[in-house]
Amino acid sequence: MTAAIASLVNHQVRLAARPVGLPRPGDWQFTEEPVAEPDEGGVLVQVLALSLDPAMRGWMNEGKSYIPPVGLGEVMRAGGVGRVIASRAAGYAVGDIVSGAPGVQEYWRVAGAQLGRAGLARIDLGLGSLTQWLNVLGMPGMTGYFGLMDVGQPKPGETVVVSGAAGAVGQTVGQLARIKGCRVVGIAGGAAKCDWVVQELGFDACIDYKAAAPAGAERWDAVREGLKRHCPQGVDVYFDNVGGDILDAVLARINRRARIVICGAISQYNATSAVQGPKNYLSLLVNRARMEGIVVFDYTDRYPQAVAELSGYLKDGRMKSKEDVVGGGVAAFPATLTRLFTGENFGKLVLELAR
Amino acid sequence: MTAAIASLVNHQVRLAARPVGLPRPGDWQFTEEPVAEPDEGGVLVQVLALSLDPAMRGWMNEGKSYIPPVGLGEVMRAGGVGRVIASRAAGYAVGDIVSGAPGVQEYWRVAGAQLGRAGLARIDLGLGSLTQWLNVLGMPGMTGYFGLMDVGQPKPGETVVVSGAAGAVGQTVGQLARIKGCRVVGIAGGAAKCDWVVQELGFDACIDYKAAAPAGAERWDAVREGLKRHCPQGVDVYFDNVGGDILDAVLARINRRARIVICGAISQYNATSAVQGPKNYLSLLVNRARMEGIVVFDYTDRYPQAVAELSGYLKDGRMKSKEDVVGGGVAAFPATLTRLFTGENFGKLVLELAR
Repeated sequence: MTAAIASLVNHQVRLAARPVGLPRPGDWQFTEEPVAEPDEGGVLVQVLALSLDPAMRGWMNEGKSYIPPVGLGEVMRAGGVGRVIASRAAGYAVGDIVSGAPGVQEYWRVAGAQLGRAGLARIDLGLGSLTQWLNVLGMPGMTGYFGLMDVGQPKPGETVVVSGAAGAVGQTVGQLARIKGCRVVGIAGGAAKCDWVVQELGFDACIDYKAAAPAGAERWDAVREGLKRHCPQGVDVYFDNVGGDILDAVLARINRRARIVICGAISQYNATSAVQGPKNYLSLLVNRARMEGIVVFDYTDRYPQAVAELSGYLKDGRMKSKEDVVGGGVAAFPATLTRLFTGENFGKLVLELAR
Repeated sequence: MTAAIASLVNHQVRLAARPVGLPRPGDWQFTEEPVAEPDEGGVLVQVLALSLDPAMRGWMNEGKSYIPPVGLGEVMRAGGVGRVIASRAAGYAVGDIVSGAPGVQEYWRVAGAQLGRAGLARIDLGLGSLTQWLNVLGMPGMTGYFGLMDVGQPKPGETVVVSGAAGAVGQTVGQLARIKGCRVVGIAGGAAKCDWVVQELGFDACIDYKAAAPAGAERWDAVREGLKRHCPQGVDVYFDNVGGDILDAVLARINRRARIVICGAISQYNATSAVQGPKNYLSLLVNRARMEGIVVFDYTDRYPQAVAELSGYLKDGRMKSKEDVVGGGVAAFPATLTRLFTGENFGKLVLELAR
């Protein structure tokens, strides 16, 4: 072991308890471990930045899902990017920038036997910045790309609505739909996000779901009214990141043969009672419409194709990206994660661990 | 006008008020009118039998749907079969047996100007009996056929679950899925229906949702338990006629890439509060599954193909049908309709008006 590596300490955040509702401080455990050299065929990665995603909340729950839950006492699962600081693996050199799922820790030691299935991949900073590789070129971008293109199947001239429009997935979905010739209406929380989505990203309109309802109106009337005003031809594709009342409001405006992409339901992830089912789901019947789920991991074989296309849009300026980069290292992870659920983040939420 | 026709009286049932919840006697109005000869190009049909369908409840509500609501004061919309008793239309002769949407009345006068779009069609009693033309060969059969084949897309060896299994649509769906090589599990109310579905129709199993829950269990535990037991490989296609808690129970058991056909939601049609949305809808995400609506009227061009196939199965004995024929004429319509919503009917509910 080299002296430099032997002197390193790996700070980690582990799942201590399964949260009820919004995760609380007691649900986490901070640990530290010595850092070890990679074994034969393995690599050691210093984690530079972590992706904080709404999906993390689901990974903390017990029960069958598209991916096993994080075990109690395990390092919290997280996607991220890092730099190879030691390598005994063919194809990886010290200094390489990589992406993968290091978890919430400062150093990621990938054993040789695990290398093939650890999801480790070298990334090209010529295609996008480090944080863009966690956003448009990363899991959220891939989710948006395949959810929109494969499940939503937008056609030029159609109206596409996307919730969480200023978020990581939403910004890719909306801009991509514009590029594909659609009318795009976002739904986001707050005037700043809505203005950005329209003025910077070129959405046709954005509905502020946090706008004060007019006197006498109930909370979601503004969303319903906005959909009516901004989708005069109805809704052909709805990309849903939020669920709840917003999903119901859009269901009431869909067109015949509409496609609803179920990507997430952030409004429901911390619910302590039952999930709120879409009471307007019979609109699917009336309109011969479809509601379908997307899980990005099904498309890993096609990531390179999507990265090539999206990085081209970043280069030629047709697509912009916004990351909300928070410092403070792994210690800041618990507090930073909760910003997702209150909607405090503005753009893709990234936790920076090192430069 | 011939003396015979001039002496006829047409008894009708009209929608007097929009029901709140289950339709009540005051929601209907009984009228009678003299019967007139057909005009140039028109026909006069004596209605022999009417189809009573869950969808009728939706037609009574105000608001945009796949078909305009029945207007207040109008004869209640209904599909049916009848005999031509006078014709001034090419292609129709006295004595022809026809199907169409006569409404709840004894005589259906189709004006010449309306003939092309009245949905009138001569039917061949060589392909199926009069009541089978309201069942397997009629709207329910067409709904089951296209809902299963086009939306559900069952593959041999897959597991298909159908609710309302002993009903008009359900019996076609389940038997057709068996013929296509699927494992078929029905859900129906009561031991008699379940026994019939398994022993007569050849379903692999049927879950009685009205079965008393075991001590200490809640009402739907029997359904959940039954799905677990009878669908050991999970559910690939769910054909939903009922909605509510049964839809949620099935959502919890679906496989990856499952297809859920939303055909109806009879458990919700008379709800006086909001429709119960499927709180397990995020199972669509986890399983990359699809929920899609079917409206039979989209497939009118292909009815002949489906009738040819289904009548073949009736002939060679691979498919059976059961109609629950109720007498009493149009006066019995209101009380007979409510049997659908209590589940008292056993098989396709038909109101006989004349022989």
